[in-house]
Amino acid sequence: SAYGERRVGGGPSAALRSRPRAAESRVPCVARPVRPRHGPGALPGPAVPALPRRLHLRQEEPHPLRAAHRGPAQSVAILLYLARKYKVPDHWYPQDPQACARVDEYLAWQHTALRRNCLRALWHKVMLPVFLGELVSPETLAATLAELDVALQVLEGKFLQDKAFLTGPHVSLADLVAITELMHPVGAGCQVFKGRPKLAAWRQRVEAAVGEALFQEAHEVILKAKDSQPADPTLKQKMLPKVLAMIQ
Amino acid sequence: SAYGERRVGGGPSAALRSRPRAAESRVPCVARPVRPRHGPGALPGPAVPALPRRLHLRQEEPHPLRAAHRGPAQSVAILLYLARKYKVPDHWYPQDPQACARVDEYLAWQHTALRRNCLRALWHKVMLPVFLGELVSPETLAATLAELDVALQVLEGKFLQDKAFLTGPHVSLADLVAITELMHPVGAGCQVFKGRPKLAAWRQRVEAAVGEALFQEAHEVILKAKDSQPADPTLKQKMLPKVLAMIQ
Repeated sequence: SAYGERRVGGGPSAALRSRPRAAESRVPCVARPVRPRHGPGALPGPAVPALPRRLHLRQEEPHPLRAAHRGPAQSVAILLYLARKYKVPDHWYPQDPQACARVDEYLAWQHTALRRNCLRALWHKVMLPVFLGELVSPETLAATLAELDVALQVLEGKFLQDKAFLTGPHVSLADLVAITELMHPVGAGCQVFKGRPKLAAWRQRVEAAVGEALFQEAHEVILKAKDSQPADPTLKQKMLPKVLAMIQ
Repeated sequence: SAYGERRVGGGPSAALRSRPRAAESRVPCVARPVRPRHGPGALPGPAVPALPRRLHLRQEEPHPLRAAHRGPAQSVAILLYLARKYKVPDHWYPQDPQACARVDEYLAWQHTALRRNCLRALWHKVMLPVFLGELVSPETLAATLAELDVALQVLEGKFLQDKAFLTGPHVSLADLVAITELMHPVGAGCQVFKGRPKLAAWRQRVEAAVGEALFQEAHEVILKAKDSQPADPTLKQKMLPKVLAMIQ
């Protein structure tokens, strides 16, 4: 869906750019080529367009995943693929089995917990009523926000605890995936960091680790969600069933 | 929850036993020690009790994941941890980035698709009405089974296709995780393989790869789900909210 592409387009994989300067400086700094998002020459996966030149899959390379059922769940597989293929610094996805297990644990947990609730908050609060013109009852919205609150409590209390990052002292793919999910309710106007000083401080650390400019660029689209204009009826009709399936 | 432990207890990680005989024969074949499931001396993770002696975490080893929010999502992280730690044969979780990405893709997809629908089918069809004595409307059950059907179509049509296994010519963690999920609706009396010859043949291949005796042992509990007796009221009261949260 158009939304799916936008959502992960500038998402977590963008931040793999934050490799050490030493490695980066070996690459001539040129602008990313503009490529179509659809059709021939399009970049292969939803998470790929936001990657810097060196992390792009080459166009002649086959996409490692199946094109037919691309969806948000694929972004985790794509991130792992890119981390392995381009041998990014160890902290993103550690070789050490226990440290790696903590990242895997987060990545498995978020599918049905944080990601689900962040998506639902965005759609119930803004995208369904404003963009698709679908009524969402106050009860439904309240239940969605209450579930998001539970997920945020687990994120802060069970994953982050008193550590610098979600899985230990260094930034990892878990933090990247988590922050991009949290930007969904933020984009919908939810104050997810309010009253959560640990989570707010963690956000600052992730933003610093990724680089502020890239962080803003990666979330530019999602942070404008609340300013969405109503979709035209044809697009609405096409998107609505997919959206409802996605946020069920 | 008691259910969660039972569910994954004999699940996918059990089948990591199907290592090549040559490697296995170096290990003296002794019976697994009987260990408590709870309290001191209990095995650390939900997926671990079914593992053979060599694949057990040692009791003195710290559990790699956090005890506080163990849940079904952790079984994926535990499987990956065990595969890395015990350097199981490459086909389970390939080193090749593209082959590995296909396994990761399945493992990410199933959380919100096959696993969710298999769990819901089991609970809506049998466990809620019989075990917990909760009425499930025919409409709810029909919707759940229709959603399971869609997930099975994707499993067969997009993942399995005409290959021997879900991600290629060899059995992988994707097949293990998938078959254990499918045993949930099977345990509830759903005929998930009926009218799906490709999926049925794949099941036979997975069963052969794992070993028939181990396959049966691993699914012994879940395959008796439809013979469940009603829970006593105290257990029911304790379990119901957790179950409802789990299958939402």
